[in-house]
Amino acid sequence: MPYINIKITDENVTREQKEKLIQGATQLMVDVLDKNPQTTFVVIDEVNTDNWGIGYDVVTDLRAKAKK
Amino acid sequence: MPYINIKITDENVTREQKEKLIQGATQLMVDVLDKNPQTTFVVIDEVNTDNWGIGYDVVTDLRAKAKK
Amino acid sequence: MPYINIKITDENVTREQKEKLIQGATQLMVDVLDKNPQTTFVVIDEVNTDNWGIGYDVVTDLRAKAKK
Amino acid sequence: MPYINIKITDENVTREQKEKLIQGATQLMVDVLDKNPQTTFVVIDEVNTDNWGIGYDVVTDLRAKAKK
Amino acid sequence: MPYINIKITDENVTREQKEKLIQGATQLMVDVLDKNPQTTFVVIDEVNTDNWGIGYDVVTDLRAKAKK
Amino acid sequence: MPYINIKITDENVTREQKEKLIQGATQLMVDVLDKNPQTTFVVIDEVNTDNWGIGYDVVTDLRAKAKK
Repeated sequence: MPYINIKITDENVTREQKEKLIQGATQLMVDVLDKNPQTTFVVIDEVNTDNWGIGYDVVTDLRAKAKK
Repeated sequence: MPYINIKITDENVTREQKEKLIQGATQLMVDVLDKNPQTTFVVIDEVNTDNWGIGYDVVTDLRAKAKK
Repeated sequence: MPYINIKITDENVTREQKEKLIQGATQLMVDVLDKNPQTTFVVIDEVNTDNWGIGYDVVTDLRAKAKK
Repeated sequence: MPYINIKITDENVTREQKEKLIQGATQLMVDVLDKNPQTTFVVIDEVNTDNWGIGYDVVTDLRAKAKK
Repeated sequence: MPYINIKITDENVTREQKEKLIQGATQLMVDVLDKNPQTTFVVIDEVNTDNWGIGYDVVTDLRAKAKK
Repeated sequence: MPYINIKITDENVTREQKEKLIQGATQLMVDVLDKNPQTTFVVIDEVNTDNWGIGYDVVTDLRAKAKK
C-alpha cells in the first residue's frame, strides 16, 4: 500500500503527462517491491514557481534568466 | 502538539465538512493521546482529481466510469 | 481515497493507541465525507522530541521544564 | 541536499516575502549544517484559511473574531 | 527540480530495491517531464506496520491474517 | 501558525544543531511574516542516506565516492 507524492513546478503539465506519472510510479512499486497496484496511491502536487526555491533563487527568476 | 494532514480529492467539500474534519481530528488527539487542542494543527489539502491516482488510474477517469 | 498523516511526538505511544488513531481517523472520513474506508490510508509518524520545536523551544526541553 | 517545506496560511504573502523565506531557509542550512545551497530546495505551501485548524477552530473564524 | 516522496511499509526493503526505486522515479521525471536528474530528489520513508492503517485495520494485523 | 518541515540526511546532526534549526526557522517566520512563534512548529526529519537519492544516485554512494 505505497503512497507516492510527486512535487513538481506548475508549468503546463498536461493531463496525459499526469497519467504517465501515475502509471509509471505505480508500475515501479509493482516491479521493484511486488506491491498491489489497487492500493497504491500517487498524488501530484503542482507548485507555483514563485513558491519553489533552489540555490537561494526563486524558480520564477531562474526560468526568466534561462530564457535570456 | 500534533500535526494532522488530511489529503482528499477536491470534490465540493463544504465549509461545514471542513469544520467537522478539523473538530473530529482534534478531538481524536485529545481522546486517544490526551494532547492539548490549543497546539493541535489540522491542515486539509484538496487535490484535483487529475492529480490523484489509484490502481494505475486517474481518479477523474474512475469518477467518469462510476457515473456510467 | 483519503490519506491522513498524523505527526506526533515519540513518547510511548502504545499499539492500542495507534489502533484507535487509525480507526478514529478512518471513521471521520466515512462520517463526514462518505469515503470508502477500504481506500483510506492513515500513516502515523512518531517524531523524536529533539526534532520537534514550538515557540523557539525544543520539545525535549519543554518536557523537562514541565516536570520540575 | 536538504528539503524544507514551509506551510503557511494563504493571506496575501508577497513575492518579496517568498524570496526572503527561500533565502533565509537556505542560509539556515548553510550556516548550521554546512549544506550546499545549490542542492537545497525550499517549497512554500499556501493553505486557504478554511483548510487550517487550530484548537478546534477554523483559522477563517479566528481571523474574523480577531478583527472584532 | 522534482521532489518525490515514497512512503512504504518497513518490511525488509533491501539496499538494491532502494536503488531501483531511486533510479526508476528519477527516470520517470526525465522521460515524462524532461526534468534535470541532477536536481531530482527521491526520499523513501519506511513506516512501521504498526503505524500504517488501511480500511480501519493496522497493517501488522493484516499481515498476520494473511499468513494464516 | 506556520508548520516547517526540514528533511535532511541522518549524518550526525547534533542536539545543538537541531536547536539552531528550530530557532532559526521560527525566527524567519517572525521576521518575514510577523507570525506568532508560540504557534510555529518546526519538525526535523532525519533520513538515512540509503533512502535519499539525487541524480539517480543513492546518497550513501555519493558520500563514499567523495571520500576517495
